[in-house]
Order: sequence, then structure tokens, then C-alpha cells
Amino acid sequence: MAQKTVLIVYAHQSGGSFNSAAKNIAVEAFTLQGYKVIVSDLYAMNFKATATMEDIAGDVKKPEEFKYGDETMHAWMDGRLSDDIIAEQRKLEEAELVIFQFPMYWFSVPAILKGWIDRVLTQGFAFSLQNMYDNGKFKDKKAMLSFSTGAMEKMFLPDGLHGDMNVTLWPLQNGVLHFCGFQVLAPQVFYCPAHCPLEVRTASLEGWRTRLVTLLDEQPLTFASCGMFDLSFSGGFKLRPEVWEEQSACPHGLSTGHHLGKPLPPNNQLKAGDSKGDAV
Amino acid sequence: MAQKTVLIVYAHQSGGSFNSAAKNIAVEAFTLQGYKVIVSDLYAMNFKATATMEDIAGDVKKPEEFKYGDETMHAWMDGRLSDDIIAEQRKLEEAELVIFQFPMYWFSVPAILKGWIDRVLTQGFAFSLQNMYDNGKFKDKKAMLSFSTGAMEKMFLPDGLHGDMNVTLWPLQNGVLHFCGFQVLAPQVFYCPAHCPLEVRTASLEGWRTRLVTLLDEQPLTFASCGMFDLSFSGGFKLRPEVWEEQSACPHGLSTGHHLGKPLPPNNQLKAGDSKGDAV
Ligand SMILES: Cc1cc2nc3c(=O)[nH]c(=O)nc-3n(C[C@H](O)[C@H](O)[C@H](O)COP(=O)(O)OP(=O)(O)OC[C@H]3O[C@@H](n4cnc5c(N)ncnc54)[C@H](O)[C@@H]3O)c2cc1C
Ligand SMILES: Cc1cc2nc3c(=O)[nH]c(=O)nc-3n(C[C@H](O)[C@H](O)[C@H](O)COP(=O)(O)OP(=O)(O)OC[C@H]3O[C@@H](n4cnc5c(N)ncnc54)[C@H](O)[C@@H]3O)c2cc1C
Repeated sequence: MAQKTVLIVYAHQSGGSFNSAAKNIAVEAFTLQGYKVIVSDLYAMNFKATATMEDIAGDVKKPEEFKYGDETMHAWMDGRLSDDIIAEQRKLEEAELVIFQFPMYWFSVPAILKGWIDRVLTQGFAFSLQNMYDNGKFKDKKAMLSFSTGAMEKMFLPDGLHGDMNVTLWPLQNGVLHFCGFQVLAPQVFYCPAHCPLEVRTASLEGWRTRLVTLLDEQPLTFASCGMFDLSFSGGFKLRPEVWEEQSACPHGLSTGHHLGKPLPPNNQLKAGDSKGDAV
Repeated sequence: MAQKTVLIVYAHQSGGSFNSAAKNIAVEAFTLQGYKVIVSDLYAMNFKATATMEDIAGDVKKPEEFKYGDETMHAWMDGRLSDDIIAEQRKLEEAELVIFQFPMYWFSVPAILKGWIDRVLTQGFAFSLQNMYDNGKFKDKKAMLSFSTGAMEKMFLPDGLHGDMNVTLWPLQNGVLHFCGFQVLAPQVFYCPAHCPLEVRTASLEGWRTRLVTLLDEQPLTFASCGMFDLSFSGGFKLRPEVWEEQSACPHGLSTGHHLGKPLPPNNQLKAGDSKGDAV
């Protein structure tokens, strides 16, 4: 059997950073388990973040009317995407697990990593109108976010200053990972490493090392399935009436959208590493 | 009295695009109202998206330990940020309203615009530990998102395939705009311009033009205020117990976090331009 591959898409400027340490632990842990580990070290690669015409080899006919999405989709079909995009797509095809390792920037990923998402997940390659969510192209692959914050954990609880972390992660976990079909593993969140004692930092990194041993056995997060929706123009891509009724019977089931699952009581949200909780 | 200024941070590759048309309408409308209008046309400026050492003039002492957040904060204090960042910060200081005009990329902004957010909103300049949310640096300014989608409006309803648009916008509207203190105006969402008839596109652009006449009189969106939280280490930056009790009395008030406000019944979420709805 061919060796299995893990891809780590890593976005930190410095080799001495906490994020670098978290990335190195994942490289070690999967190498030890016999995996081939590929790291895309975006800053070191000077990865291009912006979605421009240069992403397509050859001339664009009408630059004034350039449509990035349509034209990269056609370029993907014809093998005319730029080499750096093709290289990342090959890594992704090979990987059975993708880990995104980054410091949280503005409730999201750093721009260089957003650029990887915008440029590498080309329509046709990563999704199509027929292939999204649980019918997604990457439904046999797993993916997860592993990131550090400046904020303390309490600030990202539902009743914390910044609100529920799961809501903050929705665009990334649902809109990017689940959208492309990935089985999304619970996020690994390292809260506030810059302002906690060395022992706490060391312990959290060791917790990550331990989690990695059985990571691929974890149950992925639960998301609403496509089958719950009427995926036709007349149905308007909305929840089927019978699902609506069924879920309405649960006390809060659909309170802010079925996607959010049942509301969680204060102090009891999904913890990183707790793969049994409901998704976001 | 000095002329008032509007800043449009605009991220589209093509002058013939729908987003370009929406941007041009805002330039026209505010010019007609006597404003000075500044456009940061990020692709045309070849705006650097990635947060790197080059953002600071002069040498960085230990590149292996470079900490982007800390070091740009100090560089801002000493006037050592790169010229392109300083130029954007000057525009922002001058503006009383900032409009972000972009096509939605992966449930968020395109990477080039994320780079503007990451690099321009330097700690010290845009926020500090004392100045965030309703005590934020920009509390006398207004800001809003104006964007187009590929998806239809129904897909972004609470019971739609992609879930509630307000949840998707939370990291941007709360985590970026409200965090810096901006009064956040309701988003202007242009659903699916690429796949609707010309009349619908024209009508939606004319709706935008009409909205712009009274935009600055609109009530901003409502967010939880800092006063609701115990902003001390012992209090853990969490909702004050008395606020918790008060809000729990409302049927669903805190279901997935107070931030989300009261849940909205299906088919009745906040519409773009309806500034009377609860925020996200
Ligand atoms: C533009 C920008 C936007 C931001 N937005 C947000 C936001 O929205 N929300 C938020 O919460 N935060 C935000 N932050 C803060 C950011 O998330 C943190 O600064 C970052 O997560 C810290 O991670 P790091 O790897 O850079 O830590 P570092 O500063 O590199 O490391 C922290 C500590 O860990 C130590 N360390 C390194 N290796 C090891 C090891 N092997 N064992 C033990 N200790 C080690 C380091 O020496 C250091 O003392 C933002 C920062 C920036 C610059
Ligand atoms: C990387 C990537 C990620 C994406 N992620 C998402 C996502 O998460 N969610 C989502 O919903 N969508 C997503 N999309 C789709 C994207 O949001 C849309 O393609 C975009 O919003 C369309 O806006 P545009 O300005 O590019 O439209 P264009 O294609 O430029 O224009 C649409 C139509 O309007 C016409 N037009 C131009 N000017 C005028 C005028 N003055 N009057 C009338 N008509 C005019 C054009 O000729 C064209 O026919 C993504 C696309 C890409 C490339």
C-alpha cells in the first residue's frame, strides 16, 4: 500500500514562534506514525496571496472584463493555471488529512493563508455546483484548523467578550472546509500562548502531541447535510418543510439557523479536542 | 468647516465588473453630496497583502523571533511603518465613513482586502487593550460592507443551504469593524449579479444609489456593549451575572450567545438596507 500523506499548510513568519513549534510537533508525530508529511510554509515560499490574471498562463482576452472565478475554472480544465497553484493542488490531492496551522488574525486566517484558500481551491478542482458540502470533492479527506490566539479562552465563550468561537469559525469550518466536502475535525485552539507561563505552553503543546496519536480516529464535527435541503431552483435551496417541522419540535433547534445545532448553555461550549460535541 | 471624507476600500480586478459599477456609484453619490471621496483600489495599487518584516522600516533584530503584532505596534509608535501602511492609515484617519466594496470570496473578503485589514489596522493605531468595541478608537466613524455574492439570497437565509448571512459576517462586522469601534451600518448585499437579468442588476445598483442619499442618517447595527461584560481578569471578560439573568428571561435571548441577539423566524432575517433589525 502506498504511504499515506498529511499536508500542513503553515502560516507564520518566524521559526522561533509558538506556531512553528505546533507545526514541528505535527511533523514529528505523523512522521513517527509512518506518514509522508508535506509542509507548505507560506511565508518561506513567499506565497502569492492575491487572486490576479497572473494565476493563468497565457493572455487574458479582455482584461477589463476579467472574471477570476470563471477564468480560473476554465484554466484548471485546460491545465493553464500557474505553477504555484498546480503544485499546491497536487499536494492536496495526495493528502488524506490537511492541517491549517496559523495565528488567528482578525477573527480569521492571516491574508497569506486566505490567499492560499482563494487561489488553490479553484472551481472544478475543489468544488462544483454538483459537488459541495457532503457531496463535496474532498469527502474522503479530513481537514482541521489548528491555531493560536491573543485572546483568552473565556473571551471566546458564548457569554465572553468576543462571543462563541464556533460562530467565529463558521466561515472557515463550514464555508471553506465543509463546503469542499472535507470531514472537519474539531479545531485545536491554543489560547493566548504569548501571555501564559512556560509550563502552560509546554503542556498545551504536549496535549497536541497526544491528540495527534489518535487524531485520525476522531469523529468529525456534525454539519447539516445536503439531504436536509431542497436543492432545486423552485425549492430555493432551503430546508425541506418536513425537516423544518421536525427540528422545530426541539426547543431551540433552529433558533439561529439549523446549522448552529442546539444552543449550548454558558460555560459548556465545544472544546478543542472534544470531537463528540455538535459542530458550531 | 473642512470638507468631509469618505474612504472606499475596493477590491476587484476589473474595471468592467459589477463591483466596479457599485464603487463608481458610491463615488458619484458622495461627490454629489459634497464629500471628498478617496478610493483605495487595492488590485490597481498592487497592494501588498502579506504581513511581513518589510512592513517595518529598518532592520529587525532577531528575524527568527519576529513577532508581527508587537513589532508593528512599536513601529507605529516610532513612525517606522512602511509608507504604504502609513498612507492607508492617513486616509482612514481623515474619513468619517469607510465602505468596503468587494466580491465575497469563501464566506469572507478576498485575500488582498484581508491583507489591508491585517496590515493597516495596527495595534495602537486602530485599537488598544483600553480601546476596543464601543470604546474603540474609531467610535466617531462609520463603516460598512458592500459586496456581491455568487449565491442567491435564499441560500443565505437562516434555513438556507449556507446558513444565516449574519453569522457569516460576524468575524468581519464584529471582529474587525465593531472591534475597532466603528458604528457598523447594515451591509449592502448584491446577491448573484452574474446570474440575474440586466434589469435586476440595474435595479439593485439604483437601489444602492438611493440608499446612499441617506446612508449617513441610518441607525447603525446593535452589538452587545462593553458595559455588559466584566472587563477584569478576575471577571474573566465574561457577561456580568445580572445581564445574564436579565437576558435569560427572554425566550431565546442568549441561545447561541447574546451577540446573536434574538433568533429570527425563517424568511425574516435582517435585510441589507434594513437598519432597524438587530445586528448579527
Ligand atoms: C494582525 C493581527 C491580528 C490579530 N487578530 C487576533 C484576533 O482576532 N483574535 C485574537 O485572539 N488574537 C489576534 N491576534 C493575536 C495573535 O493571534 C497572536 O499574537 C498569536 O496567535 C500568537 O502566536 P505566535 O505563534 O505568534 O506566538 P509567539 O509570540 O511566537 O509565541 C508565544 C510564546 O510561546 C513561546 N514558544 C515558542 N516555542 C515554544 C515551545 N516550543 N514551547 C514553549 N513555548 C514556546 C515563544 O517564545 C513566546 O514566548 C492578532 C495578531 C495580529 C498580528
Ligand atoms: C475565489 C472565489 C471565492 C468565492 N466565494 C464565494 C462565496 O463564498 N460565496 C458566494 O456566494 N460567492 C462566492 N464567489 C462568487 C463571487 O462572489 C462572485 O463571482 C462575485 O460576487 C460577482 O461579482 P463581480 O463584480 O465579479 O461580478 P461580474 O461577473 O463582474 O458582474 C456580474 C454581471 O454584472 C454585469 N455588470 C457590470 N457592470 C454593470 C452595470 N453597471 N449595470 C448592470 N450590470 C453590470 C457584468 O457585465 C456581469 O454580467 C467566489 C468567487 C471566487 C472567485
